[in-house]
Amino acid sequence: MTNRKALTEYVSAFTHSLVEQGVSDVVISPGSRSTPLAYACMKQEGLTTYRQIDERSAAYFALGLAKASGKPVMLLCTSGTAAANYFPAIVEAFYARVPLLVVTADRPHELREVGAPQAINQVNIFGSHVKWATDLPMPETENQLAFLTRHLHRSVQNATSEPRGPVHLNVPFREPLRIDLEQDYVSNHEIAHLGGERSLNAESRTFLQQLLKKEKGLLIVGEQTQNMPKEFWTFIEKLDWPVLADPLSNVRGNVPQSAKSLIIDSYDALLKSERFKDVVKPDAVIRVGPPPVSKPLSLFLAAVKPETYVVFDESSMLRDPQSVATHHIQAAEKNLWQLPVENKSPNAYREKWTQASHLYWQVVERHCQDELDEGVLAKVLFDRLDHCDLIVSSSMPIRDVDTYFQTTERDIMLYANRGANGIDGVVSTAFGVQAAKKRPAYLYIGDLAFLHDMNGLIASKMQETDLTIVIMNNDGGGIFSYLPQSQEELYFEELFGTPTGLKFSDAANMYDAQYLSAETAEQFAAALDEPKTKPVKMIEVFTNRENNVTTHRKLWSRFDEELAKR
Amino acid sequence: MTNRKALTEYVSAFTHSLVEQGVSDVVISPGSRSTPLAYACMKQEGLTTYRQIDERSAAYFALGLAKASGKPVMLLCTSGTAAANYFPAIVEAFYARVPLLVVTADRPHELREVGAPQAINQVNIFGSHVKWATDLPMPETENQLAFLTRHLHRSVQNATSEPRGPVHLNVPFREPLRIDLEQDYVSNHEIAHLGGERSLNAESRTFLQQLLKKEKGLLIVGEQTQNMPKEFWTFIEKLDWPVLADPLSNVRGNVPQSAKSLIIDSYDALLKSERFKDVVKPDAVIRVGPPPVSKPLSLFLAAVKPETYVVFDESSMLRDPQSVATHHIQAAEKNLWQLPVENKSPNAYREKWTQASHLYWQVVERHCQDELDEGVLAKVLFDRLDHCDLIVSSSMPIRDVDTYFQTTERDIMLYANRGANGIDGVVSTAFGVQAAKKRPAYLYIGDLAFLHDMNGLIASKMQETDLTIVIMNNDGGGIFSYLPQSQEELYFEELFGTPTGLKFSDAANMYDAQYLSAETAEQFAAALDEPKTKPVKMIEVFTNRENNVTTHRKLWSRFDEELAKR
Repeated sequence: MTNRKALTEYVSAFTHSLVEQGVSDVVISPGSRSTPLAYACMKQEGLTTYRQIDERSAAYFALGLAKASGKPVMLLCTSGTAAANYFPAIVEAFYARVPLLVVTADRPHELREVGAPQAINQVNIFGSHVKWATDLPMPETENQLAFLTRHLHRSVQNATSEPRGPVHLNVPFREPLRIDLEQDYVSNHEIAHLGGERSLNAESRTFLQQLLKKEKGLLIVGEQTQNMPKEFWTFIEKLDWPVLADPLSNVRGNVPQSAKSLIIDSYDALLKSERFKDVVKPDAVIRVGPPPVSKPLSLFLAAVKPETYVVFDESSMLRDPQSVATHHIQAAEKNLWQLPVENKSPNAYREKWTQASHLYWQVVERHCQDELDEGVLAKVLFDRLDHCDLIVSSSMPIRDVDTYFQTTERDIMLYANRGANGIDGVVSTAFGVQAAKKRPAYLYIGDLAFLHDMNGLIASKMQETDLTIVIMNNDGGGIFSYLPQSQEELYFEELFGTPTGLKFSDAANMYDAQYLSAETAEQFAAALDEPKTKPVKMIEVFTNRENNVTTHRKLWSRFDEELAKR
Repeated sequence: MTNRKALTEYVSAFTHSLVEQGVSDVVISPGSRSTPLAYACMKQEGLTTYRQIDERSAAYFALGLAKASGKPVMLLCTSGTAAANYFPAIVEAFYARVPLLVVTADRPHELREVGAPQAINQVNIFGSHVKWATDLPMPETENQLAFLTRHLHRSVQNATSEPRGPVHLNVPFREPLRIDLEQDYVSNHEIAHLGGERSLNAESRTFLQQLLKKEKGLLIVGEQTQNMPKEFWTFIEKLDWPVLADPLSNVRGNVPQSAKSLIIDSYDALLKSERFKDVVKPDAVIRVGPPPVSKPLSLFLAAVKPETYVVFDESSMLRDPQSVATHHIQAAEKNLWQLPVENKSPNAYREKWTQASHLYWQVVERHCQDELDEGVLAKVLFDRLDHCDLIVSSSMPIRDVDTYFQTTERDIMLYANRGANGIDGVVSTAFGVQAAKKRPAYLYIGDLAFLHDMNGLIASKMQETDLTIVIMNNDGGGIFSYLPQSQEELYFEELFGTPTGLKFSDAANMYDAQYLSAETAEQFAAALDEPKTKPVKMIEVFTNRENNVTTHRKLWSRFDEELAKR
């Protein structure tokens, strides 16, 4: 794709997307850097263009337009102090709550802060007087149109949701700035925005009710920090779609017997099999909660590109890094459970998933008898838990849960810090969860994450607690062994393995915690069964990093073979 | 003082101070909130006022004025979008490097962000396009004029130092806004700014040469991270003023025999004695480096208010929290050592200090034989050190150095984190110092600070090191015992004592460090003398918090008694 073609597509998608979302007016101030978008605005059907030489006047004019029409108005100017001249009207719009889409053209990064003419620092230039600001990517590569239209979608949502206000989009362009006025633009990157603030509007309800009639549908449940309401269980039993339950969905625990076959807890493993993926392509997907941990699932969805992929997200920041969603419903997910749904059980599509899942757990059973790795050990833990909470660290532990935590009626809830996926502060978060729930809590954590927040143990000296900490000590950053760079021996251990040679019995002594260690599944089971004698019980499990990788892979290929036999 | 009087004084000091520093032009845009300053500008001698209704034009006009005159120009506007209209010209001034003092009047804090008219968020409103921004205090109380004039001083210095540029002062006013036009203003809060960028100008040289002729002079040396040059020692020997050497000045170690009587290492203790303070009032003070740790010293200077108090500080942020300095020389302190100075030794004033200091160390000797506290133990450490570096944590350890570290010819340098005085990260900083200096290092640290950065010990696993860590374990926040709230028993231990009951032998085990402990001076000395067998040697000294306070106080009263006998 030539630069000009990419540029033309980018700005066409830009204006097209805004019009799709109800923007009908743009106020343009002349300038060079904004040329591509200015042309696109002129060409765009459904967009009325106004011109005003002085950007300050332009912005105040747009404010009047937006105020009276009740619709968001786009402003477009070139780079430099042009942007600064918008400022007074932006401040007014912020406090008067008037929706503006302030688009400032900018120099490319290599011309910023080097004394180039009309190049000032435009990133976040309006500070706390816009509701949201973003610095968009340069129009250079393919595949960025979906990202662009989602950002525009977010901008309009942000500007028009209460309290309404201005939003700033900074758009860098590199020369040459001429677009191809003959080039057609076919929109295929739009995402539909349905549904209102807290409850669903009529359009969303109708749309969803139609969708729920489909047979080949998937319901994906991401992290939930509270138990699902009863309506959820009634809803999924009637719907009879496979429910792909993220480790943090908290619908793998406390599961009614009648719903057990609906909860697919093994999809992370199942979707590693090409064989299986081929036969379970969905027609419709609905997701609630953040994107699941599972990489095979996100790869599957990105490859399949379901015709309809609805995401419930109350924020204008749609969590959809692969840009696969087709519909964004900005409303609380509880609205979904309240929709009427015809009973379509038994659903043949769902049964395919249930059977594969059943087979998977048979393979796991045998695997656990033959092999020893962190996952096998983790399962020893998971199978014992009841009337308690389990906190897991990022990196490998959360993935072990994905692979080895089987749906259960037992009363157990899971927590992890997946907002930013840090390995810091997990010990302290576990103490916090326990303090809120006031029942036994278990922390399942790797050695590096534990080391990171060892200071958190001091909480046990300051307050009552009941925490069992299971440390998987593989002497370093286990997850890196799964990454491509692990093939390169040079520098690998220094940079990624970060072996510390530390053992944590001393930490236990220091904080007066009960300490046990284990190397086999039997030893680990015995350590778990050992009565708890202190507020904090620490079980250190010594494992082998390389072994973890090979046995994990063995499990997956074993399952694939079994599947082939069916 | 009535509100009107305070308001009048405040704005009079404001304009007076700017004129003193060479501002001769102000561009005023009419508005209500800026009324007090607008009147003060009109009344101010030496200030030419221009008026311009449109703030955008006003700012561009001021830009032209400043550009052509080469002098900083003041802008004054009311609250609200008036400020936002300055933005284009401010951006231009920032990149064109033109000095502007942008003064925006603001509502008082209780009218911000509550929907009051013309009240927008003006704090840091110009973002990264001003060199510096500050939100000034309301004109309400006495004693804030010195703070105000120093801030104005800093503003002008900042705007006019290379690269020059705009500076923003946000000034809140509460109604009523009328000032008393008859009220006279006598400036007595001005600080003189002398001297240029890196070297001294002629004015500074002449001024300093006169000053150095005085007998009753003090040279205060704050933190230095490199050894003083030879010129320093020659300079102070001729000058023969007492040199008050902060623990981090690094002129208490590596001291030539000939200079030993000049270095006053005991001033923190001496200046606790009212008797002594009465007889050593200085006529002149020169300080280099940041303000010393010693609270008695800063109280002494604030009470004495020396006629001339010169501070060398290369930054426009003058570090002078009590506003005692009379002259700010914004130049490198090495210029001072290069000035010619007549030999006035022996100086009777200096000898008073030397004798008192001598007496102090005699009292300390006896005290160390009779008592046992952290300071006494610290002296055991300090007296042994040679060819090494000593890192000390904030809070009590740095104060122990102030009280017990005696001037020595031995080769020892001291380091601490006093930029923000945090207790975090000290262990890691010590490893960093050792890695740079590549010779044995000692860390002298309290138990809380050690706990805070225990993770830092992992450095010993990653790189070569040679560190001895002395932990003063008094089970909690020792320094709080010296504060007034320690008299209030209720909640004190929970809130301030923060006892953890931790012992650190386990930490030593975990990180494979050599571990020794001590409770008496003899045991501690033996532990220090014990050969080092690991990269990290840890000596934990168990002390008693309450005892530390009482024996410290005993030392000071003992010294005062001895002084009375002379």
